[in-house]
Amino acid sequence: MTSNQTVKTLIQGEWNISSSHKTVDIYSPHKNELIGQVPSLSQEELDASIQSTVEAQVAWESKSIQDRGDILKKWADILEERKEDIGHAIMNEVAKKKSSAVSEVTRTADYIRYTVEEAFRLDGDVKRGDGFKGGSPQKIGMVEKAPLGTILAIGPFNYPVNLSASKIAPALMQGNSVIFKPATQGAISGIKMVEALIDAGLPKELLTIATGRGSVIGDFLVQHPSVDMITFTGGTGTGRHISELSSMIPVVLELGGKDPAIVLEDADLDKAAKEIVQGAYSYSGQRCTAIKRVLVKDEIADELASKIQTQVDELSVGMPEDNATITPLINQKSADAVQNLIDDAKEKGATVVTGDKREDNLLYPTLLDRVTSDMNVAWEEPFGPVLPIIRVSDQEEAIRLANESEYGLQASVFSKDTERAISIANRLEVGSVQLNAKTERGPDHFPFLGVKASGLGVQGIQESLLSVVRDKVTIINM
Amino acid sequence: MTSNQTVKTLIQGEWNISSSHKTVDIYSPHKNELIGQVPSLSQEELDASIQSTVEAQVAWESKSIQDRGDILKKWADILEERKEDIGHAIMNEVAKKKSSAVSEVTRTADYIRYTVEEAFRLDGDVKRGDGFKGGSPQKIGMVEKAPLGTILAIGPFNYPVNLSASKIAPALMQGNSVIFKPATQGAISGIKMVEALIDAGLPKELLTIATGRGSVIGDFLVQHPSVDMITFTGGTGTGRHISELSSMIPVVLELGGKDPAIVLEDADLDKAAKEIVQGAYSYSGQRCTAIKRVLVKDEIADELASKIQTQVDELSVGMPEDNATITPLINQKSADAVQNLIDDAKEKGATVVTGDKREDNLLYPTLLDRVTSDMNVAWEEPFGPVLPIIRVSDQEEAIRLANESEYGLQASVFSKDTERAISIANRLEVGSVQLNAKTERGPDHFPFLGVKASGLGVQGIQESLLSVVRDKVTIINM
Amino acid sequence: MTSNQTVKTLIQGEWNISSSHKTVDIYSPHKNELIGQVPSLSQEELDASIQSTVEAQVAWESKSIQDRGDILKKWADILEERKEDIGHAIMNEVAKKKSSAVSEVTRTADYIRYTVEEAFRLDGDVKRGDGFKGGSPQKIGMVEKAPLGTILAIGPFNYPVNLSASKIAPALMQGNSVIFKPATQGAISGIKMVEALIDAGLPKELLTIATGRGSVIGDFLVQHPSVDMITFTGGTGTGRHISELSSMIPVVLELGGKDPAIVLEDADLDKAAKEIVQGAYSYSGQRCTAIKRVLVKDEIADELASKIQTQVDELSVGMPEDNATITPLINQKSADAVQNLIDDAKEKGATVVTGDKREDNLLYPTLLDRVTSDMNVAWEEPFGPVLPIIRVSDQEEAIRLANESEYGLQASVFSKDTERAISIANRLEVGSVQLNAKTERGPDHFPFLGVKASGLGVQGIQESLLSVVRDKVTIINM
Amino acid sequence: MTSNQTVKTLIQGEWNISSSHKTVDIYSPHKNELIGQVPSLSQEELDASIQSTVEAQVAWESKSIQDRGDILKKWADILEERKEDIGHAIMNEVAKKKSSAVSEVTRTADYIRYTVEEAFRLDGDVKRGDGFKGGSPQKIGMVEKAPLGTILAIGPFNYPVNLSASKIAPALMQGNSVIFKPATQGAISGIKMVEALIDAGLPKELLTIATGRGSVIGDFLVQHPSVDMITFTGGTGTGRHISELSSMIPVVLELGGKDPAIVLEDADLDKAAKEIVQGAYSYSGQRCTAIKRVLVKDEIADELASKIQTQVDELSVGMPEDNATITPLINQKSADAVQNLIDDAKEKGATVVTGDKREDNLLYPTLLDRVTSDMNVAWEEPFGPVLPIIRVSDQEEAIRLANESEYGLQASVFSKDTERAISIANRLEVGSVQLNAKTERGPDHFPFLGVKASGLGVQGIQESLLSVVRDKVTIINM
Repeated sequence: MTSNQTVKTLIQGEWNISSSHKTVDIYSPHKNELIGQVPSLSQEELDASIQSTVEAQVAWESKSIQDRGDILKKWADILEERKEDIGHAIMNEVAKKKSSAVSEVTRTADYIRYTVEEAFRLDGDVKRGDGFKGGSPQKIGMVEKAPLGTILAIGPFNYPVNLSASKIAPALMQGNSVIFKPATQGAISGIKMVEALIDAGLPKELLTIATGRGSVIGDFLVQHPSVDMITFTGGTGTGRHISELSSMIPVVLELGGKDPAIVLEDADLDKAAKEIVQGAYSYSGQRCTAIKRVLVKDEIADELASKIQTQVDELSVGMPEDNATITPLINQKSADAVQNLIDDAKEKGATVVTGDKREDNLLYPTLLDRVTSDMNVAWEEPFGPVLPIIRVSDQEEAIRLANESEYGLQASVFSKDTERAISIANRLEVGSVQLNAKTERGPDHFPFLGVKASGLGVQGIQESLLSVVRDKVTIINM
Repeated sequence: MTSNQTVKTLIQGEWNISSSHKTVDIYSPHKNELIGQVPSLSQEELDASIQSTVEAQVAWESKSIQDRGDILKKWADILEERKEDIGHAIMNEVAKKKSSAVSEVTRTADYIRYTVEEAFRLDGDVKRGDGFKGGSPQKIGMVEKAPLGTILAIGPFNYPVNLSASKIAPALMQGNSVIFKPATQGAISGIKMVEALIDAGLPKELLTIATGRGSVIGDFLVQHPSVDMITFTGGTGTGRHISELSSMIPVVLELGGKDPAIVLEDADLDKAAKEIVQGAYSYSGQRCTAIKRVLVKDEIADELASKIQTQVDELSVGMPEDNATITPLINQKSADAVQNLIDDAKEKGATVVTGDKREDNLLYPTLLDRVTSDMNVAWEEPFGPVLPIIRVSDQEEAIRLANESEYGLQASVFSKDTERAISIANRLEVGSVQLNAKTERGPDHFPFLGVKASGLGVQGIQESLLSVVRDKVTIINM
Repeated sequence: MTSNQTVKTLIQGEWNISSSHKTVDIYSPHKNELIGQVPSLSQEELDASIQSTVEAQVAWESKSIQDRGDILKKWADILEERKEDIGHAIMNEVAKKKSSAVSEVTRTADYIRYTVEEAFRLDGDVKRGDGFKGGSPQKIGMVEKAPLGTILAIGPFNYPVNLSASKIAPALMQGNSVIFKPATQGAISGIKMVEALIDAGLPKELLTIATGRGSVIGDFLVQHPSVDMITFTGGTGTGRHISELSSMIPVVLELGGKDPAIVLEDADLDKAAKEIVQGAYSYSGQRCTAIKRVLVKDEIADELASKIQTQVDELSVGMPEDNATITPLINQKSADAVQNLIDDAKEKGATVVTGDKREDNLLYPTLLDRVTSDMNVAWEEPFGPVLPIIRVSDQEEAIRLANESEYGLQASVFSKDTERAISIANRLEVGSVQLNAKTERGPDHFPFLGVKASGLGVQGIQESLLSVVRDKVTIINM
Repeated sequence: MTSNQTVKTLIQGEWNISSSHKTVDIYSPHKNELIGQVPSLSQEELDASIQSTVEAQVAWESKSIQDRGDILKKWADILEERKEDIGHAIMNEVAKKKSSAVSEVTRTADYIRYTVEEAFRLDGDVKRGDGFKGGSPQKIGMVEKAPLGTILAIGPFNYPVNLSASKIAPALMQGNSVIFKPATQGAISGIKMVEALIDAGLPKELLTIATGRGSVIGDFLVQHPSVDMITFTGGTGTGRHISELSSMIPVVLELGGKDPAIVLEDADLDKAAKEIVQGAYSYSGQRCTAIKRVLVKDEIADELASKIQTQVDELSVGMPEDNATITPLINQKSADAVQNLIDDAKEKGATVVTGDKREDNLLYPTLLDRVTSDMNVAWEEPFGPVLPIIRVSDQEEAIRLANESEYGLQASVFSKDTERAISIANRLEVGSVQLNAKTERGPDHFPFLGVKASGLGVQGIQESLLSVVRDKVTIINM
């Protein structure tokens, strides 16, 4: 049943609801109220819309890249104009503090603009035939890039605008069309973001917004023969499922993490504590690149724990409208999962340094010390404000524990001896290592990747642009 | 049962047979005799060997790249010294003419040397933090490459040495270990190639040769949790299966093709005919990049067909020992499949311009004219010496038919108007387009890729080296 | 003597006149009236200003590149806002038609923006020590770019805004300070351009505008020990003098040209004629990249000459305010020089197809046919609206005559056979060859260079940014 | 007068003496005996030879790059075969210890091989016309490299083979011809090196060896109109003269240095002392990249001086045949100059820690402490075994003194705090900074450059290859 709260989706080149009138309800995590509905599309509706999106791609590809860029730059401008409105939608849907929700929108505008300019610069190569033994100097190979066709972009709830636009913008700039599947929690924000894109002049047929129930349309999308590439941010379970289900197409996955902060005895502990708390608790820890465990040398563990505690106790807890850093988690299930990790650790002997207080789905920032390998919180990824401190006897133990995780997203190493820190970094099985700073996604033009269960492929700006094209080689024979 | 003809495989750091004493027989395609056996390994044997290969990788990665390069350059030298012996093995196993079999070995040596030198040059990037809005000039990102770990390399029968070494060499140069699964027909040649590598000084544990029955070990290998990347050359069916079975790891696939030669009315027909015949019939057409259909403008079709016929009739037919271009196909089944395509086309009205003669698994070079879209040979890939001519009324029909194929490997366009040819090339859904020359894999330093059912990912030398590493980002915070 | 018409220059961080009150008069080429004066600086004044500009560079270099980019982007915005005013100044000073003068300003804004974005992306390299034999894997070389210091930018009269900003913008983006010496004719426009830059927020000390008499300050600037690099556009004589005078610093020179259009017998003559006329006569031929001679195969020469004539006769002749294509030349001396070339050619037997009419410094567009090697117009560069047609017997003669010129800027080759055209292009001793199109500077992101007497070094956007920095290598020893 | 000791030079494609029979005598620095003579060419002889070298270039450029590479790889092989003979010549001519002289030859062979492989890989770019605003997608710019023509390579005495071949090899690989002017002291070694190149198959006309008196042929060569580029290694005075004399051609200069080793209070002093001694004294300090001053924090100066002294006292002093590290300087004049610096410093109050002993042109390794800014040895470059220690009160003084030098080649910074060391490195006006290691030229694939009076342009392998070509842009207009 649709109400007047139903936000229309973009299918077959029109803003519309499902012909079945089915919808999915979206509740606010912190207000406990229905804030809207999005259409629950059927496979048939999606199939028809995908078809029109595929067809629209041909004309789009043949446009000048300047013309494509003009539309995307306009999109960035409109997003900035609407940052309050879209930021408000984000805040309501995912309980992110207001200021962060708004800055997510402006950061997205910057991301889009950089993507446009970067795409202008992706030159091809001229390969000389006689560069290889036996090759003829009469052969000149021009290696350029061609769009893959139609990209399936699946976004997460935690950055419903930024992590969706960072998939859509490169796809479009390179001449692809897009099937965009927002997270249910985040769908309203995502639709608002696309409205800005259409208002900027994008032909409506070029993009389908696949709202609906994952159980109905998820596998259907992933296996759809017209999908030429999938880019996904979300949980490791879903990512793995997509990887198995998809066939003969490139897949980029950004999944979970269990980023360690390794703190050595010669670290600047004040700096380390500050970076760790920012890295661990912002947006209540609901970030894949959050610091999710501290591996610290025994001899300095007490001091570090104390410094961390001081800072944790200063974190603001409350509602996103009040710009609290710690806000209610995305839903009860998520809060339960985090609480279970805390309870398990306590039972097995961990010390609660601070926190361990819950109001509904609002968890207070929690610091656990003396966490050991038998506790779940040592290995599982909590999407919430809890940070375990694991004490290690030496550097080798820290490296071993860091690498024992199934995840491999990022890591921090704190030490004043940079050469030592680099040599540790070289041994960590993760995508990026921050020396003496917190883990984080940005700056956005750096390559961003996870290894092992943390992902497949690379994002970034140049990298994302390259992930949606393939080589096209034209050989002139003189 | 093993005989003294059993060639030992490389498992757990030793040259050995299977503890089960099981073997797989290898028959020569043209002599109809057993020429040897290779061990039929069990899953348990393989598992143990993979384990030791994974462990050996750590020390290998930490070696200087110069040291790794020294071993591989030695390998190239030894291959050249043994080119007659290994070439003979290739000839016997896959019925390739002697001179081509020997030159496959020398071309492989060149490939390895170029790979070594290329790896020396794969520098990293320094990214400045303030390159992106809001980024700090105090952040310096060093983006380097790290090996993926253990690479599963699966080779085809038609170039059992070259297309295996071109997977193994980049994997090793970049610090990975290797599980090498040769095609059964081609396994003896492949083992000889690895013998040269071990003789060059490669630690034996670094490489496992997975001989055996595909039905027993195929899926086991593809799904093995210690495999970090798969690179495969072979049939589209198997490639698609690998793509579906594998999970969360990069996969590079080079599969089948149905490369068209588009001949326009302003082409140099003598040149076109010569290139087409070389492109279509060498090694009896058993090459993924063979020209497998001619799309020619009606008005010049008679003339072109006649010129092609003249050249086809000059092709030598016979035994590989005699350096015949057309030799027996890899097996009876393959010959049957090609014959069926010819028979189907004849039945449906195609003209046999020349050929259509068979002696056992030796098929004479066959040229079919007036082939139409209802005939199987218009769409299916024959791995044999048959070439269909399809007449088209205009350039648009040629492009449409070219793109209707499920395959998208390469294409040739023959026209004196290069700008026109480039604009056609831009519309062809294939990896590479040759202007006024035959399709072919080389020169080996050009990117090589297929789209649609023809493959996933890119090979080439730089490209193959990049396919077995991932980014490693180290961020200095000043 | 200064009047209230004196435009202030920028010295020692202030807008000021010369303390000597000396000035240089600027007359409009087409109105024959004094339109303003610029300060005639002494060597002492310049020396002091250079000193303060050198000192200001240190702080500028240490700013974030984003901050530098923000100022330059603002500059581009202000230029666009003032395009009518600045365009009017250009028109008055150099008699360029109004619409072109205005579009010079907007094209300059685009150039600056692209320069800013490009500078953000000039990453460094990480070189591995063990990439070379004997090198240690413990050595990691970070290769970044450092500014040269203070850049002397000397602009020409014909694009007084664009060809000055295209020197100043890259210099500033890369962290350098600038000594800007405008052409006397063009100085008022140049000063207006710099006003916009200062209004955008550039610290005034960072830039000195060196107005004055070349005889007084020219050599002084070129030999000044604080100048770290010179970039100059102008005549070959001056360029050569700068090259000889300067010592131990990089110099980029863009000088004269004598660009040939080679027209082969298989060319599309309508297209060739159209491109040649646009290439030869726009802005009365006062462009270094103008087509300045036609080398045409005898057999098609009559037809081509006739087609060119038709188009030349349609060119509008008159005043820049009326957007005439052909306007008065920059001064009488220049007009005399062009007339002398015409007279010499006529005397020696050339045919005047059309034109050869003069009103003061306004020369009507002139087409000369049957020009031969003994005539000066065959070799000298006219900066005016005259085009000689030289008939050749074959392709080899065309190539020989093209290369006999002392100049080597650009060339056009007209032929439908692109492979043939490329092989001719490969033999032409010029910076760029246009196949089937007129010679021209843009698009601005292409490399732009002249060889032989046409220049030294390369411009373009990336190239210009690289011309004002040098490598800085930092080697970490692990 | 020529004796039978006259080594023939290569002119006009022949091994010959001067028609004037004039020669230049070459004495051994340590044996005080005439070891040979080289022809003293006249300007007329050189002019004729340059002419034939220029003409030979055309055919060379049009060869396949593989063919050029084959000859150069052969050259490397022959050099290695003759390393004892050529090494012996080096030892005799420049008094370099035997083992270093021989390894100079093998290192040169490695350099050549790397150069060949690098040249194979210098691909061009494909620029899209619509990458810039207003640009047309119909324009495709192919940016490739073309040889400059004829390169004048002028080598120094201290590495008469390596620093000559590293100019000749890139020039030839890129399709240029070469005028090679060896240092007089070093000419015999240089000629032997070229003999190997001719024996490897290089057409003799492609290279002229310009032996003779600098006073007769130096300026003539630099100003010769057929010379398209100059690459020079040697003294700053000569370099500056070349820069002033040359006109409108690229010039690469590698000149003198005064490399500081900055030692901070947190440095590993044992490591610092060891690196400083190796860096300062090897080949008696006759290296442009030798450490030529120590800037050390007061508080650790005594300890460092003592550690350096210990190591200096262990250096072997004697004859090159005995592999002594400290051998006689290149000539008496050079030894006098170094002695004068020592005497001046002593007079002005410096402490002689060790050394200050002279036998003819053999100077014992000398360490001076408490050197101050008023002493010449604080600023002038000694080409000999003397090292001044300058004590500084803080890091800022060290940076200031480092930058006050007219030179800017390399520097070392010793500190355990890498971030601090990098931030110092960023402020040093030199080409390269080594963190915690000695200054040095290699590894050879790193960029190598000096700023200020230390040079112009960049060497290295890729860099040297790029220094002898220019862009060639071919624009296809679709």
